[in-house]
Amino acid sequence: MPKNRVESFADGIFAFAATLLILNIAVDQRQALGPQLLHSWPSFAAYAISFITIGIIGANHHQVMHQLEHVDRFFLMVTVLFLMFIAFIPFPTRLLALDIKGPDAEAAALAYGITLFGTALFFNALWWYAAAGRRLLRADADQRAVDGISRSYVLGPISYGVATLVALRSPVASAGLYAAIALFYLLDSTVFGRRT
Amino acid sequence: MPKNRVESFADGIFAFAATLLILNIAVDQRQALGPQLLHSWPSFAAYAISFITIGIIGANHHQVMHQLEHVDRFFLMVTVLFLMFIAFIPFPTRLLALDIKGPDAEAAALAYGITLFGTALFFNALWWYAAAGRRLLRADADQRAVDGISRSYVLGPISYGVATLVALRSPVASAGLYAAIALFYLLDSTVFGRRT
Amino acid sequence: MPKNRVESFADGIFAFAATLLILNIAVDQRQALGPQLLHSWPSFAAYAISFITIGIIGANHHQVMHQLEHVDRFFLMVTVLFLMFIAFIPFPTRLLALDIKGPDAEAAALAYGITLFGTALFFNALWWYAAAGRRLLRADADQRAVDGISRSYVLGPISYGVATLVALRSPVASAGLYAAIALFYLLDSTVFGRRT
Amino acid sequence: MPKNRVESFADGIFAFAATLLILNIAVDQRQALGPQLLHSWPSFAAYAISFITIGIIGANHHQVMHQLEHVDRFFLMVTVLFLMFIAFIPFPTRLLALDIKGPDAEAAALAYGITLFGTALFFNALWWYAAAGRRLLRADADQRAVDGISRSYVLGPISYGVATLVALRSPVASAGLYAAIALFYLLDSTVFGRRT
Repeated sequence: MPKNRVESFADGIFAFAATLLILNIAVDQRQALGPQLLHSWPSFAAYAISFITIGIIGANHHQVMHQLEHVDRFFLMVTVLFLMFIAFIPFPTRLLALDIKGPDAEAAALAYGITLFGTALFFNALWWYAAAGRRLLRADADQRAVDGISRSYVLGPISYGVATLVALRSPVASAGLYAAIALFYLLDSTVFGRRT
Repeated sequence: MPKNRVESFADGIFAFAATLLILNIAVDQRQALGPQLLHSWPSFAAYAISFITIGIIGANHHQVMHQLEHVDRFFLMVTVLFLMFIAFIPFPTRLLALDIKGPDAEAAALAYGITLFGTALFFNALWWYAAAGRRLLRADADQRAVDGISRSYVLGPISYGVATLVALRSPVASAGLYAAIALFYLLDSTVFGRRT
Repeated sequence: MPKNRVESFADGIFAFAATLLILNIAVDQRQALGPQLLHSWPSFAAYAISFITIGIIGANHHQVMHQLEHVDRFFLMVTVLFLMFIAFIPFPTRLLALDIKGPDAEAAALAYGITLFGTALFFNALWWYAAAGRRLLRADADQRAVDGISRSYVLGPISYGVATLVALRSPVASAGLYAAIALFYLLDSTVFGRRT
Repeated sequence: MPKNRVESFADGIFAFAATLLILNIAVDQRQALGPQLLHSWPSFAAYAISFITIGIIGANHHQVMHQLEHVDRFFLMVTVLFLMFIAFIPFPTRLLALDIKGPDAEAAALAYGITLFGTALFFNALWWYAAAGRRLLRADADQRAVDGISRSYVLGPISYGVATLVALRSPVASAGLYAAIALFYLLDSTVFGRRT
């Protein structure tokens, strides 16, 4: 099975899930706009964190697909489950934006963390399935690059898992960790990560 | 007519219809979040069932297009009608999620079943039109693979037809069948279906 | 300028505008579902008419692009204006669905007609700009096919113009004409149009 | 890293952000439709301005990508930040449409201007990063064309910056400037810009 249509389906989901995030931002027409906009910074922050997170996962997914020779049905189905989590992200993003300053902060931070943890888990699943025994890899895929990807991806579920657990003690700290993870990946691939 | 733009239009519809499903999930800001999320499991289940269903139909559509040499206007128009049903799926998914536990369960389960039955019917129509007398097939399309596809696709309208009729007696059982069909196809192409 | 990215931008708009149509269909949770669904047939009809219309315009746009060698900035800008009308279609579709049975039927039918008339006008503009003096055509584009396209496209603004004027006398007749136009194109490219 | 998937992700964002603009247009079912439509001209104008603006930025982004040989991680990450601003445009467009005639006009015009200023800034950032020392350019990219792009892009942040500052004195004048900028680019690439 050729891999180009998996890519175009995945690109559609990445782009669309990222664009739908904007629907989470709304204002109340009956109140003055200026103060509302200043007051809405958690919505803007949540928008930015989730957009950057989806963008980075998309870029990494490009990297994965680039290493593959072909895909099989099993890989395709794990991809569907992985994209199901990606497309889910706008919902907990909305919860985080609206509730991080209120009494529902813990539930919102948990919902966000569990979603991102699941996303990272399925992303690892599709990579490990493809890379194990070089099952779906291109003949010319450099084994050191493959091992480097494997090592760096495994950090995803761990860091989101930790940040999710932190939500049980401090939802705000947990939200800070979600932002920090996105920022780390952004800087890692830019300032530090130019080596690629 | 080249087939690549049919594919990109179809991939767009698959990806957007699947991503739009998330708009069906909403919470009431005036009530506590945690209990609402636990209480909303039918929404999450309906999201997962429809997302997986659309993903599998998308993967099967890839398989169909892969067998074709070219497309003609008739095939294109049947594809438009088929995609019209795909893009409709978010609506009955919302009905199923909201009403399965209430007095409207029967109408919701019927709406879902009729939509999926129509989807399966038009999917079969485009395949049979393409495959009859090998009308649009590639010269090198293996006839045994073609016959295998024909046999397995015909199960779609039958199983959704049965599940829809079940809704007249028990909407909950019917919803369980919708989930079972999605799960069967998922497992069939993964655990059992590795043979491909 | 290569034409492939114009195609992918246009395909995105076609697919997305068609998929967004489903958001026009909604029910009131406080009323019984079954009767509402039966009563909502104008919404379903409007969904089908607009989806098929967008699908056919998309297929015709494929046909246009297929005849082109390359595109220039002017063509690109007319395409943007054309797509601006395509992406607008979900709004008058909603008006038509909700108001065709009430006192706002005339305004709704006019809004729908003007939108489709504008769409057809800009679609003709981009085709005529490309075809005049074979400005952007491929060297091997058959002049008879080009003339055939020119003749058939010019019917678009005329038929939508007439249907829009009919709305001033009878909005329901006008809505029937919008359906008839979509149906005609669908049948023309299938039952009659197999000659292509 | 190949550049084709960056393009398809970007095309997705451009197309969806432009199509989502239509969700900003709504009418109140409890009031007469005709007068509302006539009264809603700021919504239609805002829709057109933002759609054309996104379309032009998309066309220019095509132009940029056309000059590149390849992309690196840093370019990819600046692209994600740039697209984050693109996908944000529907929100201030809605504010502008709803509030330009009311007491919140200044806040709305500022929000629109800041968003477009940020968009233009990040668009320049990705172009300058790619062009500096011909870092990512194709070997055959004409240096004069490259310099021409550099000169014309730098006008983006300046004109949006000025228009944003004007909002502090006259939001309506500022909205007029946003429309004028879109119109200028549209005419520049068509009537004047045929030289390309």
